[in-house]
Amino acid sequence: MTDFAKTKSLFHLPEGIIYLDGNSLGPLPKAATAAVSKTMQDEWGELLITGWNKAGWMNKPSNVGDRVGKLIGAPSGSVVMGDTLSIKVYQALASALEINSDRKLVLSDTGNFPSDLYMADGLIKSLDKGHELRLYNPESVAEQLTEEVAVLMLTEVDYRTGRLHNMAEITKKAHDLGIITVWDLAHTAGAVDVDLEGADADFAIGCTYKYLNSGPGGPAFIYVAPRLQDQVRPALSGWLGHEAPFAFDLDYRAGGGIERMRCGTPPILQLASLEASLDIWDLATMADVRAKSIELTDLFVKLVEDSCPDLKLASPRNGQERGSQISFHFKEGYAAMQALIDRGVIGDFRAPDIMRFGFTPLYIDEGDVIQAVEIMKEVMTNKLWDNPKYFERSAVT
Amino acid sequence: MTDFAKTKSLFHLPEGIIYLDGNSLGPLPKAATAAVSKTMQDEWGELLITGWNKAGWMNKPSNVGDRVGKLIGAPSGSVVMGDTLSIKVYQALASALEINSDRKLVLSDTGNFPSDLYMADGLIKSLDKGHELRLYNPESVAEQLTEEVAVLMLTEVDYRTGRLHNMAEITKKAHDLGIITVWDLAHTAGAVDVDLEGADADFAIGCTYKYLNSGPGGPAFIYVAPRLQDQVRPALSGWLGHEAPFAFDLDYRAGGGIERMRCGTPPILQLASLEASLDIWDLATMADVRAKSIELTDLFVKLVEDSCPDLKLASPRNGQERGSQISFHFKEGYAAMQALIDRGVIGDFRAPDIMRFGFTPLYIDEGDVIQAVEIMKEVMTNKLWDNPKYFERSAVT
Repeated sequence: MTDFAKTKSLFHLPEGIIYLDGNSLGPLPKAATAAVSKTMQDEWGELLITGWNKAGWMNKPSNVGDRVGKLIGAPSGSVVMGDTLSIKVYQALASALEINSDRKLVLSDTGNFPSDLYMADGLIKSLDKGHELRLYNPESVAEQLTEEVAVLMLTEVDYRTGRLHNMAEITKKAHDLGIITVWDLAHTAGAVDVDLEGADADFAIGCTYKYLNSGPGGPAFIYVAPRLQDQVRPALSGWLGHEAPFAFDLDYRAGGGIERMRCGTPPILQLASLEASLDIWDLATMADVRAKSIELTDLFVKLVEDSCPDLKLASPRNGQERGSQISFHFKEGYAAMQALIDRGVIGDFRAPDIMRFGFTPLYIDEGDVIQAVEIMKEVMTNKLWDNPKYFERSAVT
Repeated sequence: MTDFAKTKSLFHLPEGIIYLDGNSLGPLPKAATAAVSKTMQDEWGELLITGWNKAGWMNKPSNVGDRVGKLIGAPSGSVVMGDTLSIKVYQALASALEINSDRKLVLSDTGNFPSDLYMADGLIKSLDKGHELRLYNPESVAEQLTEEVAVLMLTEVDYRTGRLHNMAEITKKAHDLGIITVWDLAHTAGAVDVDLEGADADFAIGCTYKYLNSGPGGPAFIYVAPRLQDQVRPALSGWLGHEAPFAFDLDYRAGGGIERMRCGTPPILQLASLEASLDIWDLATMADVRAKSIELTDLFVKLVEDSCPDLKLASPRNGQERGSQISFHFKEGYAAMQALIDRGVIGDFRAPDIMRFGFTPLYIDEGDVIQAVEIMKEVMTNKLWDNPKYFERSAVT
C-alpha cells in the first residue's frame, strides 16, 4: 500500500496554500533542486563534454522513458523523452498518417487540447494532400469511426471536464476499422492507471510537468507500439534518432526501435528534475494513486455540492469515468477562482465558465479537500468574488 | 574593451583541464547553478502555476531571444527561444519552402551539420511534392545558385573545419535570384560577430549550448527577418505561437511577429541557466570576442605547426575566413585526441581524421593556448597516442 503521507512529505508545498492545480503544473519535489544542482556542478561543471558518456546523458531519454513507461503500462523500450508535447503530437500524427496513407480523414473531438488540433492543422496544411481534420463531440466521436478514417487522435482525459475516454474499447473499435490511434496522455500520466500495452494503443504522447511534477517546461514523451516501431518514418528526423549519430553521415538512416523518435539534443537539466520526481513515483503504485484519486474527487464533489449550490458539476459524477480533476460551471468562475487563489486555494479557470481543481494523491489528502471546500463555501456564500480586482485578466489564467 | 580576465573568472573551469571544446558544450557559468536553484525554489516552489505570470516565464522565450539577438545582429522582436536546433531547422525550412512554393530545389553543402540535412530530408519526404535536396562542396555551393533554387540552407561555420561562409555576399546573390536563405548559426553565435540585419538574412537558427554556454540540452533560437514575420506560416503551429493561447480556441491563428514561431511550453530551467550565461555575455562585445578569437587561433596554428609537424591544418589559415575553432588532419586523430584528453587538453574528434579545438575568449587565454600546445607537442613527438586504450571508441566522440 502506497504511503501517501510519506510521498506528501517529499514535496515542497508552500505554507498556507492548498494546491489543486497539479494537473497544470506539479509542485517542486524537495529533492529536485539538489538533483539539478548536482547535474550542473558534478556533471556539467566537472565532466564538461564528457558528461554525454560519463554521466549517461546520451541514454537519458530512453532510460527515463522506461521509468515513465512503467506509469502508463508501456513495456521497456517503447517510450522516449524529449521536445514538447506539441512536437510529439506532430511526430505521432505524421507517422500515423503515413502508415494509413490511402485515407485522408483525421478524427478528433472538441475536448482535445487545442494545441493538438493546431499541430494537426499545421501538419495537414504542410502535407497539402487533401487530409481533413474533423471534430465531433467527445460523447459521439467513437460513433463516427468508419473505414474512411486514417487516424483517431484523442486526449484520453478532457482538460476541461476530466471526462475519460475508454481507451481500450475505442482502440479496439478503431483497429477493427483499420484506424491508427494517437492518444494524448497529458492528463492521464500519473493520474489514471492507463495500460497502453493492454489497450493495444498505437501511438501515445504526453507531458511531464503536470502529474509527473518535472517542473515548468519539462520534457514530453512519446510511445510507439513495439509492433510499429520499425515501420514508422520519423517526420522530424533529427540526428539523435539516426542509427549512428556520431558517424555524421550525410544521409539519414532511422535508428532502431523507439530511438528513432528522438530528434535533437535532450534537455539534461529538465530531465534531472524529472528524475527526482520519478524517485517519488517509485514509492507509489498507479493502482493506489487511482483509488485514492477517486476517493478524494468523490469527497470533493460531495462537499462542494453540499455547501456551494451555485456551482454545477461539469465532470462525470462516476469516478471511473473521469480523470483526476473536478470541474464546476459557474458564470463568474474566473473571478471566483481569483478569489480562491487569493485565499490560498489554487485551482484554475478554463473558458468560458469552468473552475477546475486537480487532485494529486501524492501530495493532496482528505484534510486538504475539507479545508479547500470550507474556503470555497466562504467565497461562494458571501460572494467574495464580487470584487473588481478579481475581474482583471492576466496573461495566463 | 572587454575584460576577459574578468569573464574567465566567472566560469567554473576544472583544475588541470584546458577546455578547447566549448564549441561543442560550453562550461558552467559559476552563477548558473544558483540561478537555476532560485528559479526552482523561489519561482516554481513558491509561485507554482502562478510563476507563468508572476515570474515572467511566459515571456522568457522572447525576452531571452532579444538578449541572444544582440549577439547576432538581430533587432528586438526578431528572435525567440525554444525547442532544439533540429526542430528550428524544420520550422525555418518549412516556412521558407512555402514562401517559394513554385520552386523545388533546396541547396546546401556537404559541410552542413548532418542533422540539418536529416531534417530537410524528413521534411521533403513528408511534403512529397518533388522537392530535392542537393549538396555541393562548401567552396562551390554559391556558384550553383540559380532561379530554380527555392531555399539555400547553410551552416555559416563548418562544424569540422571552421570554414566561414560570407553570409552577406551569399545572401545578396541568393536574393538577386529570388532564393530564400536559412542560416544555421550553431558555430557562429558567440563566436563570430555576425550581423543578421546587415546581411539581410531571411531565417537563422542556432543552439545555445556551445559558445553561449547554456548547458547540456539548452534551448535553440530562431530568427525571422521582420519583413517576413507576418507572412510565414509556422508548420509547427503549437498553442504558444497562437494569437491568444489562453482563449483555447479550436482553430489556429498565428500570433504576431516572431511569437508565432513558438510551439510548446518553454523549458524554464534550461532558460534560467542560459540567462546566467548571458549575464557574462553582457560584459563582452562581439567585436572584442571576435578579435581575441582570431588572435588566439592564429597563435595556436603557429605554435602547433612549429611543434607538431604531423598535424596538417584543416581550417582556413586566414582568421577572417574561419569561425572560432582550429582543426587539424591526423590519420590517428581519434587516438591522439584521447591521449590529449587523458592529459587535460579537451578537444574533440570528427570523422574521418579531424582533431578539433575550439577557442572561446570568454574563458580561454594565451596561457591556455601555450600550455595546450606544450602537451600536444609531448603527445605527438613521443607518439603517446600509440596505446591500445586510446583506440577504444565510446558512444559520443
